[in-house]
Amino acid sequence: MPEIAVIMGSDSDMPRLADCFEILEKFEVPFETVISSAHRTPEWTKEWAKTARDRGVKVIIAAAGGAAHLPGVVAAYTTLPVLGVPMETSVMGGLDSVLSILQMPSGIPVAAMPVGKSGGANAALFAVAILASRGGAYADKLANFRDQQTQKVIERNVRLAEIGHREYLKELGGKK
Amino acid sequence: MPEIAVIMGSDSDMPRLADCFEILEKFEVPFETVISSAHRTPEWTKEWAKTARDRGVKVIIAAAGGAAHLPGVVAAYTTLPVLGVPMETSVMGGLDSVLSILQMPSGIPVAAMPVGKSGGANAALFAVAILASRGGAYADKLANFRDQQTQKVIERNVRLAEIGHREYLKELGGKK
Amino acid sequence: MPEIAVIMGSDSDMPRLADCFEILEKFEVPFETVISSAHRTPEWTKEWAKTARDRGVKVIIAAAGGAAHLPGVVAAYTTLPVLGVPMETSVMGGLDSVLSILQMPSGIPVAAMPVGKSGGANAALFAVAILASRGGAYADKLANFRDQQTQKVIERNVRLAEIGHREYLKELGGKK
Amino acid sequence: MPEIAVIMGSDSDMPRLADCFEILEKFEVPFETVISSAHRTPEWTKEWAKTARDRGVKVIIAAAGGAAHLPGVVAAYTTLPVLGVPMETSVMGGLDSVLSILQMPSGIPVAAMPVGKSGGANAALFAVAILASRGGAYADKLANFRDQQTQKVIERNVRLAEIGHREYLKELGGKK
Amino acid sequence: MPEIAVIMGSDSDMPRLADCFEILEKFEVPFETVISSAHRTPEWTKEWAKTARDRGVKVIIAAAGGAAHLPGVVAAYTTLPVLGVPMETSVMGGLDSVLSILQMPSGIPVAAMPVGKSGGANAALFAVAILASRGGAYADKLANFRDQQTQKVIERNVRLAEIGHREYLKELGGKK
Amino acid sequence: MPEIAVIMGSDSDMPRLADCFEILEKFEVPFETVISSAHRTPEWTKEWAKTARDRGVKVIIAAAGGAAHLPGVVAAYTTLPVLGVPMETSVMGGLDSVLSILQMPSGIPVAAMPVGKSGGANAALFAVAILASRGGAYADKLANFRDQQTQKVIERNVRLAEIGHREYLKELGGKK
Amino acid sequence: MPEIAVIMGSDSDMPRLADCFEILEKFEVPFETVISSAHRTPEWTKEWAKTARDRGVKVIIAAAGGAAHLPGVVAAYTTLPVLGVPMETSVMGGLDSVLSILQMPSGIPVAAMPVGKSGGANAALFAVAILASRGGAYADKLANFRDQQTQKVIERNVRLAEIGHREYLKELGGKK
Amino acid sequence: MPEIAVIMGSDSDMPRLADCFEILEKFEVPFETVISSAHRTPEWTKEWAKTARDRGVKVIIAAAGGAAHLPGVVAAYTTLPVLGVPMETSVMGGLDSVLSILQMPSGIPVAAMPVGKSGGANAALFAVAILASRGGAYADKLANFRDQQTQKVIERNVRLAEIGHREYLKELGGKK
Repeated sequence: MPEIAVIMGSDSDMPRLADCFEILEKFEVPFETVISSAHRTPEWTKEWAKTARDRGVKVIIAAAGGAAHLPGVVAAYTTLPVLGVPMETSVMGGLDSVLSILQMPSGIPVAAMPVGKSGGANAALFAVAILASRGGAYADKLANFRDQQTQKVIERNVRLAEIGHREYLKELGGKK
Repeated sequence: MPEIAVIMGSDSDMPRLADCFEILEKFEVPFETVISSAHRTPEWTKEWAKTARDRGVKVIIAAAGGAAHLPGVVAAYTTLPVLGVPMETSVMGGLDSVLSILQMPSGIPVAAMPVGKSGGANAALFAVAILASRGGAYADKLANFRDQQTQKVIERNVRLAEIGHREYLKELGGKK
Repeated sequence: MPEIAVIMGSDSDMPRLADCFEILEKFEVPFETVISSAHRTPEWTKEWAKTARDRGVKVIIAAAGGAAHLPGVVAAYTTLPVLGVPMETSVMGGLDSVLSILQMPSGIPVAAMPVGKSGGANAALFAVAILASRGGAYADKLANFRDQQTQKVIERNVRLAEIGHREYLKELGGKK
Repeated sequence: MPEIAVIMGSDSDMPRLADCFEILEKFEVPFETVISSAHRTPEWTKEWAKTARDRGVKVIIAAAGGAAHLPGVVAAYTTLPVLGVPMETSVMGGLDSVLSILQMPSGIPVAAMPVGKSGGANAALFAVAILASRGGAYADKLANFRDQQTQKVIERNVRLAEIGHREYLKELGGKK
Repeated sequence: MPEIAVIMGSDSDMPRLADCFEILEKFEVPFETVISSAHRTPEWTKEWAKTARDRGVKVIIAAAGGAAHLPGVVAAYTTLPVLGVPMETSVMGGLDSVLSILQMPSGIPVAAMPVGKSGGANAALFAVAILASRGGAYADKLANFRDQQTQKVIERNVRLAEIGHREYLKELGGKK
Repeated sequence: MPEIAVIMGSDSDMPRLADCFEILEKFEVPFETVISSAHRTPEWTKEWAKTARDRGVKVIIAAAGGAAHLPGVVAAYTTLPVLGVPMETSVMGGLDSVLSILQMPSGIPVAAMPVGKSGGANAALFAVAILASRGGAYADKLANFRDQQTQKVIERNVRLAEIGHREYLKELGGKK
Repeated sequence: MPEIAVIMGSDSDMPRLADCFEILEKFEVPFETVISSAHRTPEWTKEWAKTARDRGVKVIIAAAGGAAHLPGVVAAYTTLPVLGVPMETSVMGGLDSVLSILQMPSGIPVAAMPVGKSGGANAALFAVAILASRGGAYADKLANFRDQQTQKVIERNVRLAEIGHREYLKELGGKK
Repeated sequence: MPEIAVIMGSDSDMPRLADCFEILEKFEVPFETVISSAHRTPEWTKEWAKTARDRGVKVIIAAAGGAAHLPGVVAAYTTLPVLGVPMETSVMGGLDSVLSILQMPSGIPVAAMPVGKSGGANAALFAVAILASRGGAYADKLANFRDQQTQKVIERNVRLAEIGHREYLKELGGKK
């Protein structure tokens, strides 16, 4: 039974969610993925949203770009927490997606994540944080994840201290 | 039987539509008005949109602000032309409403009107222009409306030529 | 006799309208295309706009970028519905085009479509929706188009359910 | 023991959170409120954030404006879900607050709510939705809240149908 | 015979041009003022622009707001220099007017002035600078104007040095 | 003796002015070009601006990007008309350059041209229009230029009518 | 001998600097204030900037709005640290001022402070921080200032804990 | 003992700081570099900031992108001057980074530098300017740097005068 559900307005959004999927897999959260548009498959989206809680879903991640109505439309049909991930667009780098997701009216909340790839990653982490809000295994995993993340920064720092900024810049260039 | 339908996301949008109603009445177009939210009353909005064509509606005007999903959600359930009127907000003067209405995905069109009061007026005129696109009585009325509008500007110009800009500015001040 | 007319400010806008033309052809709507600038060929544009209704045109699609005056200038000379398609530019991804088309004064309406390629596609669909507003063959075609569109999303979804997100991402990558 | 915690960067943000408090009280969620700045009282903020989970807190609501670092700084010290409420400012209506809250780096998620008063209300509702994500009493209350909200829109609609838009506009004016 | 012509899209723009008129009068430049819209009176605007050079006009000042097409439409029908003054609007403080005036296509130039009241003043001064570009009486007057302007700033500075910032602030407050 | 002067803040701006130079050469206007920064060579810029009128210059074209102070700084030291050309930047496509050039205070006018390449072309044309404001040979050349420009659009249109949009798109593609 | 100098483009900017003056007085830093425009009194501004170091000035605070060239122009004539304070304007709340101050070219640095009143306060504090960068009495005063500031937030928090958010909101309302 | 410290939120920001390092080396300022995130290594960042003054640091340069909290978080723990360098992002070219760094609340100042590469260079120069604010060797070096910079522009100008804009453009093209 999926605990988290990821819905995309179009399959062209999927590559931007690669980090999202990877993190959910890393945390071993059962999740479902679905492609459904607020506008092209509104009935399907509605049914999916209305039945999400009964399928065991605890949190919904909805990615969309432009007039990114999907997260709001899903939120209209469920009381589950809905996280919206704004996709990058050519208009001010995705400000259209951001505002369409962010500015929900009082009464039907949607939580906006950062634009694009980071948004997918953070949506996964935030979804896990919701599952972990009462403690339990996910809370422990999340704490570990944070520790590893901290550790990685510190290791880079140690490397920088060892070799200096000139060498570090060369190493960075080599990695590309 | 209404030819035009006006739907608002909230009754707080209604005062901004006063010119819209006035123009529809002036053109003697039968119209219906309804308050229904994309998020708070999604089922109601859906049913209303799906049955609009059968009620005789030819054009839909949908006003909404912020994450202004209403025009797009209505358009998802009907093939009638939907005109979206973005309401002013505190975020960049309504750019959130504009982008949420404008940036619809390929396949489900919505026509965006200007922000606020002018948007209401122009939505009414555009709706009439659609009814008049094949000619007929509305086309004649529209031509008359344009003539009167032109005449009004010319009259102001005549007045300006008569009294000069100093006196004209005083008269303008007195009108306020 | 053309039912829809497509006017472009410059032939450099034409590639962004490829979807527009394709949809009009798919719907078998007779249409005319013309290149005429609001600023470089103002007399020509004016005559073209004034005579459009007499040529049988029912809806005008006008594409322009930057200080995108073309849709507004055309609308000044006709009471036919005018759809404006804002071209992408380097300034905030085309926000200049959007605002120049959107913010028409009360009295002379223009309907703004999304920025760029989607705008061309949706202008074509919206124009057909106007022709279909009183029902008839176009209304049936439009309903079919929507059904096919819905079907396509559902098929993608079925594929995603079959092969999972990892394989689906690979397939997507392969398609590029 | 508080389940939800509300932290504000400054007491000048408090009036914009009135709806937030009201909703939390309506849902009878035990909550704590605290004023602490990311910049003026960083140590205090840090201690507060680090101990939140141990105090029983399940979700944190953090309101801030301008370079609105508070939600992000709190999120750095806890794995609890943090909801950021961007306050309105004079710079593009609060776009500074929005972007400072929204654009968190991959790894430390914060959920952005709408700008201002609606943001406070929706943060409260989203926090309750998190508590309700596994069902239980809060889930029932949330479903009731939604039903009442739907009902209110429908009642307004009934009134509009009864008295027409002219009278409705007068009543609206009278309410002000 | 007027040397400068001021055209406004609407008489509601006139109060923002008070400084413009005052400066033209101060420099004793003969000028004409006219109200004509790019959209409501396009024929009138066209004839006016085409005959401007023959009436003796050397520079045109055109003020407009929103989809501020007027300066561009005038420039399409004359080779005289056209100065565009963007009016303030509710959308990002007039960024719509700015971009509609500024972003003219290659080939038909328009000169954009600052938004609002300063734009009116600077349009008048720029128009005089054009008349003065080959020297003559206007060039002398312009040099004098600049000297007086410099003098005024210096006088304020002297006053500030005399009384200090505390007293100066009080005097400023009293002037309001 | 130069009639027009072109000043650039940096030689990296020069390629964007290629059209500017070409048009000035086409109109056979004597012009000078200079690289001088408002910030790196302020004394040099000042002397250059103060002596421009005495060198015979009638109009100044100043190109700059980012905090594009050059046009304003030049305008502070001369009463000649100054045209500012905003260079494209990575921040909102050059909105920084636009606003720094456009928003000059009341009293010291600068005329803003479009962003980038079109801005260079239009600055050249506007400068010629100033030289032509009292008629004469430049006025005739300008009228010819406009006619040729109009002719070019009409020729493209004729071609489009001949071969249709499908073939025209292919030809366009071939030209690239 | 002044250690800090405050220059304003116009005396209308002075009220927004009230906090700036108050903080400088509180820290007992000797400072001078001057009104001088980058555009209206460029020679005066230049001389003032060139001689600032000789007058004993260590840091310059320059406030300006719109095309806010003053800080950059001052920086062009001195190697002292220059802090720019962007004034609020009607265009996107002062984004024009921000970008004109912020986007200085490589080689001539200016430090941008927040928009408006907070910018004045922070410029004063940053100037003191520069004086205190090598320790000494100002460093001690700055540490005290920070402690008091921290204390004030904590006191508010204590009050909030005592009386609860309902009473606190009433007290806040009463203070207005 | 380092006089200047450079802190980056992520090593991906380092290449944009190449000019910063080069300038610091050119001026022979002892400096330290460190990678530490406001969110991933908050404790580490805090300790680093709190001990900076004791390590001899006089000025801190902090580079960050997106919700660029790092400069503000560092400033919260030290009274040393903190210069923030906003990194370019996909959202409006880095306006998110700019506003997150710029809009610090009254009481905790941060100085914002230009976006990206120029910001790194100017941060280095501004830091040196702070060290040089009381005169001494750095002040002399800074004056020399400025002179060389001025000279370089003049040399380019001489070259342009020698060979003309056509040849100069070719040379520029050749350098690429």
